[in-house]
Parts: sequence; C-alpha cells; structure tokens
Amino acid sequence: VQPELDPTAALLAFFRRHASGVAVITMIDEAGKPYGFTATSVTSLGAKPPLATFNVASGSSSWAALCTSTYVAMHTLTDENLDLAIKMSSPHELRFASDDWMRGPHDLPVFTAASSVAIGKVREIHNVESNAVVIVDVEQGLVGEGQGALLYFQREYRRLGEALTNRNS
Amino acid sequence: VQPELDPTAALLAFFRRHASGVAVITMIDEAGKPYGFTATSVTSLGAKPPLATFNVASGSSSWAALCTSTYVAMHTLTDENLDLAIKMSSPHELRFASDDWMRGPHDLPVFTAASSVAIGKVREIHNVESNAVVIVDVEQGLVGEGQGALLYFQREYRRLGEALTNRNS
Repeated sequence: VQPELDPTAALLAFFRRHASGVAVITMIDEAGKPYGFTATSVTSLGAKPPLATFNVASGSSSWAALCTSTYVAMHTLTDENLDLAIKMSSPHELRFASDDWMRGPHDLPVFTAASSVAIGKVREIHNVESNAVVIVDVEQGLVGEGQGALLYFQREYRRLGEALTNRNS
Repeated sequence: VQPELDPTAALLAFFRRHASGVAVITMIDEAGKPYGFTATSVTSLGAKPPLATFNVASGSSSWAALCTSTYVAMHTLTDENLDLAIKMSSPHELRFASDDWMRGPHDLPVFTAASSVAIGKVREIHNVESNAVVIVDVEQGLVGEGQGALLYFQREYRRLGEALTNRNS
C-alpha cells in the first residue's frame, strides 16, 4: 500500500475504487414542474422505521425544488436503463423531454422502466459544506420487472457480474 | 409496475434491487482496541473539502467505539477480499483475530489487502431513529494494488461486470 497524503487526492483515489449502484431521484417544485437527477449515493438507513438517505450538491439544478419538496421518488436502475442514467445527468432541460415518465403518487415523476421506485417523504435536509445529506421516510413503492443492476465505477457505467462464493465455506 | 403499499416492504423491495459497493470501516476505542464492520453505505459527500458518509446502526458492536473515535479507516474491497467482507460481518471477536491487519495512521487498524484506504476524521454523528449517519473529513489515504470491486446485491456478494456503452452515442 502506498500513502496518499493530499486529502482531496486521497478521497478521489478511494472513490475511484468504490463501486456504487445507480439511482434516479425525482421531485416537483411548487408549481408541479418535474426535477430530478442521477445519484450514486442512495443507501438504506434501517427498515424499522423504513428510512433512506442520498446526497446532493446544493449547487445542483434540482436543489431549489428539493428544498421545497415534501416527497421524492427514488428509482433503482438496471443495465437496461443506461440511457436513463445518462439522460438524468445531462442538461436539465433534456431530462423530462421524452414520454418515458408518468405522474405517480403525489404527482411525482416516475420513470416506468425503472426496476423499482420508493416514494419517500423528506424528513430532513442536513447541510454539510456545499452538499447535503437528505433523509427520507419511505412511505410506499412500485416494483417493476427489470432484473440486475446498473453500477458506476471508475467513471464508467458497468453491469453486475456473477455471484461469489466464500472459498472457506 | 406494481404498487407496494406497506412502507417497510417497499423499502426492502427497493434495496433488494439496488446494488452497493462493499467497504470495511475500522476504528479503535479509547484503550486502542480495534473495532470494525462491513458497510454498504459509504458514499462521497463532495471533494472540496473531501467529505464522506456512511451509516451505522446504534445497536452495532462498533457503536460505542465509534462514538469516542476521532478517526476511522474506510477500506474499498475487490472480489479478492470476499473473505474479509464476510469476516467483518461475522461475530466481532473473530474480526481482528488474524494477522491480516496492521496499525496505520492514528493507530487505526488497516487491512493491507484492501484496494484503498481513506483515513477520515469524524466531523459529525447524526442520529436518526436507531441508526446514524456518520460524516467524516478525509485527511489522507493509502492506495493498494487490487483491481475491480466487491458488490452486494440481493443478499449476495457479486463481482463487477463489464463496462456499458451508451447505445445512442
């Protein structure tokens, strides 16, 4: 192991080696206009009560809408949803330009090709420097038919590989 | 898409379809005794300043040590580290029983087979119900030689699959 003493370089080196599941998060502003983005930070915060978290930059195009949203829709993606992941991280005016979404619970934009959707009520937006940790209570969900998962690793989208077996068991 | 109206069932259905990168987080208690656990919740919270987050249950075996720790070591794993991931989620007395770790910066336990290590200073432990979001400032790191990544999906460890190319570009 080689030392990396610069803090930002250490963080970048670490997260280049960390794989993440890819999700899409959507919300609406007070006028009902859809907002959303691709996120690699969605995690569970316990099942009883059902809580989830994700991170967002407070400079992002969805930030103002998120701050006034009561609800968000979180979508899991599979490798069949690569185009959606790319679209939801492209310029915001392109993200809802197609007819691949519908209005779901609480008028939230729902991409029906996602493998599942969890509807969360925003409990807390916790600001940390120029980013925020968003904590939501999961209230209901929608389950799709997609299999597998879409991953992000070393700045590339990746497919899920095979299952591993413990060599010692 | 089919509706799932029970909140806990909705959360479980969602996270079964969400893949996560697998990490190991270690710390020491006030006597210097090593603690640690396998985590699937490590995410970046921005690079300037370099911040990371992970989630932990306040009933976990590492909780008391974490609450008094100034520093933590976060490890990225590859599919070569499957045994380590399994060991660090087995009974706590087994987790540091082998000689696969050494004392790193701040006396933190460092598993040298990991693909990288980020040393974080605990900035904040944010309690939410029976879990907590831990926010750390990344201060330095160690880079190993391992390639690839270890994933967790549908209660199985998985290897990383191939890179995907946008069909529209």
